Amino acid sequence: MIAKVFYAGLLALLAAAPAVAEPLSIEKQGSFFIGGHDVKSDTLSTLPAYAPSGTITVGQMYVRYQIPAGASHTPVTLIHGCCLTGKTWETTPDGRMGWDEYFVRQGFSTYVIDQVARGRSATDPSTFNSVKLGKTPPDQIPPIFSAGHEAAWAIFRFGPEYPQVFEGMQFPLETQGEFWKQMVSDWNATFPTPNPTVPALSELAIKLKGTILISHSASGIYPFQTAALSAQDIAGIVSIEPGGCPAADGDLKPYIQIPILVLWGDYVDLAPRWAPRLKQCRAFAEAMKKAGGKTELVVLPEIGVKGNSHMLMQDRNSLEIAAWLVGWLNKNVEAKKN
Amino acid sequence: MIAKVFYAGLLALLAAAPAVAEPLSIEKQGSFFIGGHDVKSDTLSTLPAYAPSGTITVGQMYVRYQIPAGASHTPVTLIHGCCLTGKTWETTPDGRMGWDEYFVRQGFSTYVIDQVARGRSATDPSTFNSVKLGKTPPDQIPPIFSAGHEAAWAIFRFGPEYPQVFEGMQFPLETQGEFWKQMVSDWNATFPTPNPTVPALSELAIKLKGTILISHSASGIYPFQTAALSAQDIAGIVSIEPGGCPAADGDLKPYIQIPILVLWGDYVDLAPRWAPRLKQCRAFAEAMKKAGGKTELVVLPEIGVKGNSHMLMQDRNSLEIAAWLVGWLNKNVEAKKN
Repeated sequence: MIAKVFYAGLLALLAAAPAVAEPLSIEKQGSFFIGGHDVKSDTLSTLPAYAPSGTITVGQMYVRYQIPAGASHTPVTLIHGCCLTGKTWETTPDGRMGWDEYFVRQGFSTYVIDQVARGRSATDPSTFNSVKLGKTPPDQIPPIFSAGHEAAWAIFRFGPEYPQVFEGMQFPLETQGEFWKQMVSDWNATFPTPNPTVPALSELAIKLKGTILISHSASGIYPFQTAALSAQDIAGIVSIEPGGCPAADGDLKPYIQIPILVLWGDYVDLAPRWAPRLKQCRAFAEAMKKAGGKTELVVLPEIGVKGNSHMLMQDRNSLEIAAWLVGWLNKNVEAKKN
Repeated sequence: MIAKVFYAGLLALLAAAPAVAEPLSIEKQGSFFIGGHDVKSDTLSTLPAYAPSGTITVGQMYVRYQIPAGASHTPVTLIHGCCLTGKTWETTPDGRMGWDEYFVRQGFSTYVIDQVARGRSATDPSTFNSVKLGKTPPDQIPPIFSAGHEAAWAIFRFGPEYPQVFEGMQFPLETQGEFWKQMVSDWNATFPTPNPTVPALSELAIKLKGTILISHSASGIYPFQTAALSAQDIAGIVSIEPGGCPAADGDLKPYIQIPILVLWGDYVDLAPRWAPRLKQCRAFAEAMKKAGGKTELVVLPEIGVKGNSHMLMQDRNSLEIAAWLVGWLNKNVEAKKN
């Protein structure tokens, strides 16, 4: 109850003074890739103008970053979920500021990635062309998929099923058309576990000499898998509505020293896809507590914040949630630094 | 000769005072999509976790923009070429400032796109899945291709053939690995002419109430095709090393009122792929001159700037070329405004 009042009060306070309007002062911005390896193929192309044989580079992760003038916080890395790209964190479907800019305005250097084989991170067309040429059986085509609006509706928890809407919904559904444009084909089922984005995140964390990994949905588990590779440069983990948390009865040692927040929106218990995942994450958070870890699980309606979908970084109250999150990070990550 | 001295002098002057180091002051930044349409499919997925049937949105063009504080110029739109994304214009392979930031620093609102079906602009996986399921013959797979390093070497004119290097080459080949990571699969052969990026550019130009379209290579023709749709909001065209110019004996009316620069790097006459294209563009520029148009064709070595590859926006002297280009725009676009 005390926690609830504290959070709700903090939220109201921060929401009352959003940082907007003033020009953004950027010390440095740019983009780069992490990882990648060369692949030789004889089916890069079926077109006469482009050679079929040659070497391409795949497996790299695109990163776009902005360092604010007078950066004052540990850098954050924003990791999108299933069927989406780094666009997740940019301008919302109804045209409001995204978290990518909000965090920069709060003094955080901000790194937005496109997962491996997504967005500006390359894919390999060799198998398609090999099948096209009759060299490879059709069933060998990689299992790439797109999520249709109708099925995605329930997954993103806009309502119980398409096109019903949960009462009090904060997602700006009047501009849902702009959201559907964000969705892209997903190659992740073509990869082993951990996804190649995970070692790339680890390499990024080392390069940055410390970062807070903020993941979402299908990428929710990535920060934990990254910490299992090397916890040293993971300054914090914020896993938003993860597809899964580490097993409560598994090896918790990699996570013990890391401030961790597992964050959930509203209507979770009404969603058959999500309710068991929340339950599984609660078990993880409980096990972490017993093991002496610094893991907190927050379900927004339990602290008085209602109506949030799975895409809470784009909901109408997205910047209020971001402001609350900055408060959480200041208390749990920044205050713990040497 | 006078023109040559003028340009070389201007180039030296501008190169001597590059605008770097100071924090970048951004009035507004963000991203959005232009265009897009819904497609229904029964083969969106072959995975049990994601429904095969549903509606997806494809055909949209991703746009990321930055408006500098005190924007003083006509907005520029940066359009990447074959097998690449908007990354083309960002940080160079050797880590220097990209044109996307340079133009912002010079007072231009800057719009960087990912062509339709590239980067953050979605693709449709339906045909792959339909072939995988045996519902569609393999030869119906769309002709997607990637350019291998070896073939791309000559196309990007790093040298006559892989791995030979032209003498005086300005491309930072010591970091070529970072450049290969920028390359992605290209879907453009799956589209009719004009490419769907063209009407999206037209819609963007109208939305911006005027923009200078800066295109490259395979997209070199797009600004002309966009002007043919509606010339009204095309404030200028800079076509860098286009795959082709409009036909000299075609309808030139759409281009007559637009300040146009067709810009070429070095070694063009040594490249069998490019020499005929330069020749064809010279014929176009000559026809435009006769028709009373404002078209200029510049081959950099002819104005004393040597060693530029096809990727001149990433060459070592990329910012000097950008500075020269700003001078050209100030003289030919800005000075002509009401």
